[in-house]
Amino acid sequence: MAHVNEHYLKLPGNYLFATIAKKVDAFSKAHPDASIIRLGIGDVTRPLAPAIIEAMHKAVDEMGQAETFRGYGPEQGYDFLRQAIIKGDYEKRGVTLDPDEVFVGDGAKTDVACIQEIFGNDMRFAVADPVYPVYLDSNVMLGHTGAFDADKGIYNGVVYLPCTPENGFKAQPPAEKVDIIYLCNPSNPTGTAMSRKELETWIAYAKENKVVLIYDSAYETYITEKDVPHSIYEVAGAKEVAIELRSYSKCAGFTGTRCSYVVVPKACMAYRTDGTPVELNPMWNRRQCTFFNGTPYIIQRAAEAYYSEAGQRQCLSDVDYYMNNAHIIRDGLQAAGYTVYGATNSPYAWVQTPNGMKSWDFFDLLLEKAHVVTTPGSGFGPHGEGYLRLTAFGTKENTEEAIRRIAALHLLA
Amino acid sequence: MAHVNEHYLKLPGNYLFATIAKKVDAFSKAHPDASIIRLGIGDVTRPLAPAIIEAMHKAVDEMGQAETFRGYGPEQGYDFLRQAIIKGDYEKRGVTLDPDEVFVGDGAKTDVACIQEIFGNDMRFAVADPVYPVYLDSNVMLGHTGAFDADKGIYNGVVYLPCTPENGFKAQPPAEKVDIIYLCNPSNPTGTAMSRKELETWIAYAKENKVVLIYDSAYETYITEKDVPHSIYEVAGAKEVAIELRSYSKCAGFTGTRCSYVVVPKACMAYRTDGTPVELNPMWNRRQCTFFNGTPYIIQRAAEAYYSEAGQRQCLSDVDYYMNNAHIIRDGLQAAGYTVYGATNSPYAWVQTPNGMKSWDFFDLLLEKAHVVTTPGSGFGPHGEGYLRLTAFGTKENTEEAIRRIAALHLLA
Repeated sequence: MAHVNEHYLKLPGNYLFATIAKKVDAFSKAHPDASIIRLGIGDVTRPLAPAIIEAMHKAVDEMGQAETFRGYGPEQGYDFLRQAIIKGDYEKRGVTLDPDEVFVGDGAKTDVACIQEIFGNDMRFAVADPVYPVYLDSNVMLGHTGAFDADKGIYNGVVYLPCTPENGFKAQPPAEKVDIIYLCNPSNPTGTAMSRKELETWIAYAKENKVVLIYDSAYETYITEKDVPHSIYEVAGAKEVAIELRSYSKCAGFTGTRCSYVVVPKACMAYRTDGTPVELNPMWNRRQCTFFNGTPYIIQRAAEAYYSEAGQRQCLSDVDYYMNNAHIIRDGLQAAGYTVYGATNSPYAWVQTPNGMKSWDFFDLLLEKAHVVTTPGSGFGPHGEGYLRLTAFGTKENTEEAIRRIAALHLLA
Repeated sequence: MAHVNEHYLKLPGNYLFATIAKKVDAFSKAHPDASIIRLGIGDVTRPLAPAIIEAMHKAVDEMGQAETFRGYGPEQGYDFLRQAIIKGDYEKRGVTLDPDEVFVGDGAKTDVACIQEIFGNDMRFAVADPVYPVYLDSNVMLGHTGAFDADKGIYNGVVYLPCTPENGFKAQPPAEKVDIIYLCNPSNPTGTAMSRKELETWIAYAKENKVVLIYDSAYETYITEKDVPHSIYEVAGAKEVAIELRSYSKCAGFTGTRCSYVVVPKACMAYRTDGTPVELNPMWNRRQCTFFNGTPYIIQRAAEAYYSEAGQRQCLSDVDYYMNNAHIIRDGLQAAGYTVYGATNSPYAWVQTPNGMKSWDFFDLLLEKAHVVTTPGSGFGPHGEGYLRLTAFGTKENTEEAIRRIAALHLLA
């Protein structure tokens, strides 16, 4: 008799963004004339850069001619892209990598959900709270947690690292023993970023405790402060304990184009149960060679074009555009009396609700009174209660209008 | 301390196609003037069809304009493609499906490797022997087998279904209890195909034993015989027990373009350990929503174009081209005295080695004397010993030349 994976049944039915979509849909049906502005989900709105469009047209043409047609590519990604990544994202920051330490993927969501598969099922893992839900849900589904405690809003067996105003919304190394820790820097959802010094503490902790850090740097392009590293490998010793994941969704607008990469340095180790060290690089290589057949050739050419001179100029100009929105949100809400975190090294603003209001209540209020869609902080974990996440990925005009509407409610005046 | 997934360490180091590549590389370095013909790996060589190229150019242009740009799409695939699949692959064969029973993926290798995740870890599964290695290896890596028995060439705890000349290389329902069975029809590697009547036996068996069939129909476009169904759902009752997976790699040349789909009918059930039935459709939906972020928009438009009138005409003409090669292989080798199976409903010919030669010995001989690359049958499982797989995906000229060279060795004359 075929059994289902009963770990799936631990998941609460209400998925955050599905619940939001349902609420927005109901509101919009009840108020068909309302002009709704969406600052909720982290999806970009600017079109792909001309250099990327040009590269894809070229690649499409190649696929139409027998002489230049490409069949199965390397599961790990084409050498042209792995070289471009090293040159474009690492060498200029003083980090050296071998091409076979870089694995091209079809999206950081896939990578970050699947990376756990190379670790033992007995793992105890830690996540920031609040946190991007995929780190947690994917581990629940593969059986690395206990049951969901609906009263506390947490899974048993998981170590949560509270991010609060007191610690600047920065996860701190846990006192309890853990094996794997997910870090997102700059952080989704709080938009805050750990400095070099703070990351040095993390690396020292990981080395001492033989912990592996899953380091998600999806938002590194948005960093503006000098003392925030763009890659974890800018910190000495990080190659021994950290796997870095990076998305093209936010730096190049690839949310619908789908490309990403994972760096697994050869120095990075985990251990057999008898304590023998094992290199993680061939483990992930084997995983990708069996569970994946490579990112489309055309898409890899698109990612390569991001690193061209024109691609960089065009994409970074879009990042500037979004960061300007982030400042509009941050400065506008602060002027209206709100306490706002993030939005300096990140496209996300983390806004404290007025007068101790619950996240979902403030979400409802903004939808109903200002016709602005946000994301309730409590959807990212219990320590997100009392906050909302606003994203900078809309148009400048819509962002300004949304902030004007929220300020006009005079909730804190 | 971070532990590795020790199940990975059960895998023998020598991956079939990597070993072949190494041998070919060594030969080619030693004989730089040899004109090597590759009939080994199942990779296509014809360029993408003009209708598909045109659709991709259009989609690329859309991604370059703000008004038509697409960000995150539905994890399950765009409705336009799910509708085209149902119309193009199912309705014309009398099968009705709802769009939300179809999940667009980034390749059948990914889908077939990951589908096991929705089943309980206590599963006992069966595979044909010989078999496409991914079914087996992916399950080994997630801990669904015992250790590898190097003497027998099998994993403990797995039920192997021998495919031999006596049963026409068609897997038979096992006597022992199993939970999940992988079936590939037409079969990779043997190229043989089960008839409607044989599939009816399988469906009756699965229903009686509450077994779920993972049905891989990657080669259905190559079926030429009337009594071989193109979809498992042409067999009554199959929706209750079968998940069907399909690749665009072989029907539309997408080996480097990457698209696929999985059908999980709402009627298809597995069970909690207490025996309560659970629908598998929402389980796979949840898996895809957490571990995947959709296939690129551009690629989904490419797959949609496969179903257009021009796309069908162009792609089926490529399939005819490859099938002509399959007949060249089958008929040419038979004329030279070989026993050849498959190559009638499939691009694969399954060739018995001459005079009881071992698979790898015949592989080496053909590489050295005929400069033809094949795939040793033993690489697909112990019952593949004594056979080679030849693929029809080369050019007509190369295929003819390869068969001429093999015949000229007069091994059976």
